[in-house]
Amino acid sequence: MSRVTPLSGFPEWLPEQRIVEQNFLDTIRRVFELNGFASIETRAVEPLDQLLRKGEIDKEVYVLRRLHAAADEADAGPNSLGLHFDLTVPFARYVLENAGHLVFPLRRYQIQKVWRGERPQEGRYREFTQADVDVIDRDTLPFHYEIELPLVIGEALGALPIPPVRIQVNNRKLAEGFYRGVGAADPATVLRAVDKLDKIGPDAVRELLLADAGLSGAAADACLGLAGISSSDASFADRVKALGVSDPMLDEGLDELVRVVEGAASLRPGLVAADLRIARGLDYYTGTVYETLLAGHEDLGSISSGGRYDSLASDGRTTYPGVGISIGVSRILGRLLGQGVVAASRSVPTCVLVAVADEDSRPRAMAVASALRARGIATEVAPSAAKFGKQIRHADRRGIPFVWFCDDAEDSVKDIRSGDQVPSSAENWLPPDDDLWPTVRPAARDEEL
Amino acid sequence: MSRVTPLSGFPEWLPEQRIVEQNFLDTIRRVFELNGFASIETRAVEPLDQLLRKGEIDKEVYVLRRLHAAADEADAGPNSLGLHFDLTVPFARYVLENAGHLVFPLRRYQIQKVWRGERPQEGRYREFTQADVDVIDRDTLPFHYEIELPLVIGEALGALPIPPVRIQVNNRKLAEGFYRGVGAADPATVLRAVDKLDKIGPDAVRELLLADAGLSGAAADACLGLAGISSSDASFADRVKALGVSDPMLDEGLDELVRVVEGAASLRPGLVAADLRIARGLDYYTGTVYETLLAGHEDLGSISSGGRYDSLASDGRTTYPGVGISIGVSRILGRLLGQGVVAASRSVPTCVLVAVADEDSRPRAMAVASALRARGIATEVAPSAAKFGKQIRHADRRGIPFVWFCDDAEDSVKDIRSGDQVPSSAENWLPPDDDLWPTVRPAARDEEL
Repeated sequence: MSRVTPLSGFPEWLPEQRIVEQNFLDTIRRVFELNGFASIETRAVEPLDQLLRKGEIDKEVYVLRRLHAAADEADAGPNSLGLHFDLTVPFARYVLENAGHLVFPLRRYQIQKVWRGERPQEGRYREFTQADVDVIDRDTLPFHYEIELPLVIGEALGALPIPPVRIQVNNRKLAEGFYRGVGAADPATVLRAVDKLDKIGPDAVRELLLADAGLSGAAADACLGLAGISSSDASFADRVKALGVSDPMLDEGLDELVRVVEGAASLRPGLVAADLRIARGLDYYTGTVYETLLAGHEDLGSISSGGRYDSLASDGRTTYPGVGISIGVSRILGRLLGQGVVAASRSVPTCVLVAVADEDSRPRAMAVASALRARGIATEVAPSAAKFGKQIRHADRRGIPFVWFCDDAEDSVKDIRSGDQVPSSAENWLPPDDDLWPTVRPAARDEEL
Repeated sequence: MSRVTPLSGFPEWLPEQRIVEQNFLDTIRRVFELNGFASIETRAVEPLDQLLRKGEIDKEVYVLRRLHAAADEADAGPNSLGLHFDLTVPFARYVLENAGHLVFPLRRYQIQKVWRGERPQEGRYREFTQADVDVIDRDTLPFHYEIELPLVIGEALGALPIPPVRIQVNNRKLAEGFYRGVGAADPATVLRAVDKLDKIGPDAVRELLLADAGLSGAAADACLGLAGISSSDASFADRVKALGVSDPMLDEGLDELVRVVEGAASLRPGLVAADLRIARGLDYYTGTVYETLLAGHEDLGSISSGGRYDSLASDGRTTYPGVGISIGVSRILGRLLGQGVVAASRSVPTCVLVAVADEDSRPRAMAVASALRARGIATEVAPSAAKFGKQIRHADRRGIPFVWFCDDAEDSVKDIRSGDQVPSSAENWLPPDDDLWPTVRPAARDEEL
């Protein structure tokens, strides 16, 4: 086993970093479940024709084949399997496949890895973990879920030891109606051009609007003007109207966006703001769209995105409209762990190491460990009957706070941070609550103490 | 999205089944962490040359390539990536890659999906979840971990709502020494033949021992006699000695196996038994090997297997011997969910559905839900202001036990199973402990009640 260089784009964490990741995932899961979302997991693979049906991501799919496959399996035909690149397309397929066994509206969450064969860079991986919530219904989906979903995401992100977030919302009907209103023949082309604002800047986008979308100079300026509008209250609506564009779909989108911004503000002021530059590249969104910025890490791009979709899942007779938002867990962790901004209090779950005086007494030590575990205290027995000083150092190097000493007269336990050693019994000793399991703190706050 | 037939070998669960799976995984994780094992996750892919280095599994590997890869990436060369087929090979690679940042002996657990391109059948999937524990050390690994590991696995499996298990152990040194002692030139060939006992029966194995391994008839009979020995105490050792074969490695293996059986029996009587037919196909084991049978489901084969390995991870200068056991979570769940032997108490995490009298009062209902969630009660708001009877039926169909009614005078909550409705306040109402989250019970016991 000679070549053990890391693979670019496939991040792996050390045990102490993995504790932070588990803490994040547990916290997100708890908030999703408290909000009544049920977990599903889908297989990692989908037929290639399903994966290529939506969005502009065909380049990024990993195709599978069995190493010793028959010749007719070896090509990338429609029956080939590919690794899923998001959790929305598999979820839509799952809903169609199991519709008869599901109760709608279906509130589901899904926390899994996804794969994209992109060129790796910071915040962009080839394998990464997403945490999605969606509500999907049959035939029609009540609008109020477009207000509820960002509140759930805000609650989940707010429960993590990370800086505050701001969820930026826009509405596809608003954008599409506006583009139609200024005379665009193909609003999707305008949308794709505006989506590039952050990457190429307004001048280059204006060029695209003239050349690709065939807009007049005034129309292009109006579209750029629209993209410049943002507000944390409903005032954006007046600024849109001041641009003088009229279209029924624009009015509908404006009304919806006002309801999202005001509805969210009434329950969680400051979380959600309208930002009319938000486009979202994938083409299946049809209503509200969401992006999320992490304070102080805006350069990372959106850490949580999604939107309303009307026709992602349809079996021809029934359609299943939905709305969903995905948290980019790996993108957040990659930045915060990379900068050392969050850290676990120790590298192992262990709270107590039971010392071993000699190998003959190992069964006695194992019995003590078993008694402590039965009371919910994570415990392991020392690897060898080395000198006690060495056993204590073994605990110390892994951040284990307590070392237990068995004695025929009376056991005792030492807090190796303070050096305090007190008599103890495995039947009733308890560590302080904060020491029971590893905890995760913003590292910065740690340094302030 | 027309084709939505299930993919054979890629199991997916309905939400209520997924709750059972989550319960199993949470329980296993808790036992592993109580025993001081730290979590790691490795990427899903390994370079093909790593995957093909060990074992006889090259046919089963899924190879990846990017859909629009350059021509020179498209072949299955040594730099190609394949999906991992177990968690031991990736763990060994992870240890070598991160050795400088790890503290040894390293106690790690790993719960992830693995992939094998095998022909699917019951208990054998193309995508499945394994839960592994391993202890790995530098240069030498104390023997006592070979006693501890089956105890940890017994504790984890014993905490699940499944029938009792029996862990069957053997020892590679015992087998190899015995085969050498009867004159086998290549003990590995004998081992592979004996490994087929369950599949092809003793007569066919005897043929293989004569033809492939070149044993004499008497030697073949001795090997079959060895494979027929089992006992839940140390008495197997006398029966092995009665076969009259002498070899130093045999003696060492016998001594180790006695220590494992007696050591485990002293802490958990009845969990571990010696069974000298256990071989384990993969060739990296060098000491104790483990298989596990589920009472009443012996036809499923081993649900938890592993062993001691000396040289799986080595960078040339340092070797990292280890011992590990893997729980086949999907194999257990596939059987028990398929037979309806375990079930969740409801299909959603939700404990309370807040009814909505009209859409104008939805913000009030959302505030109640928020207050209940802040106190740890999973709550959602009804999808629409339908008649209350319809809202109650929506809760009932998903197993939600309580429906909450907002009222300007006083809120009330109805237990929809009993029909009891009582005045309530979101600031202090609590459900019974058993209703707070879904629970998982053996379905059979449920029917007895």
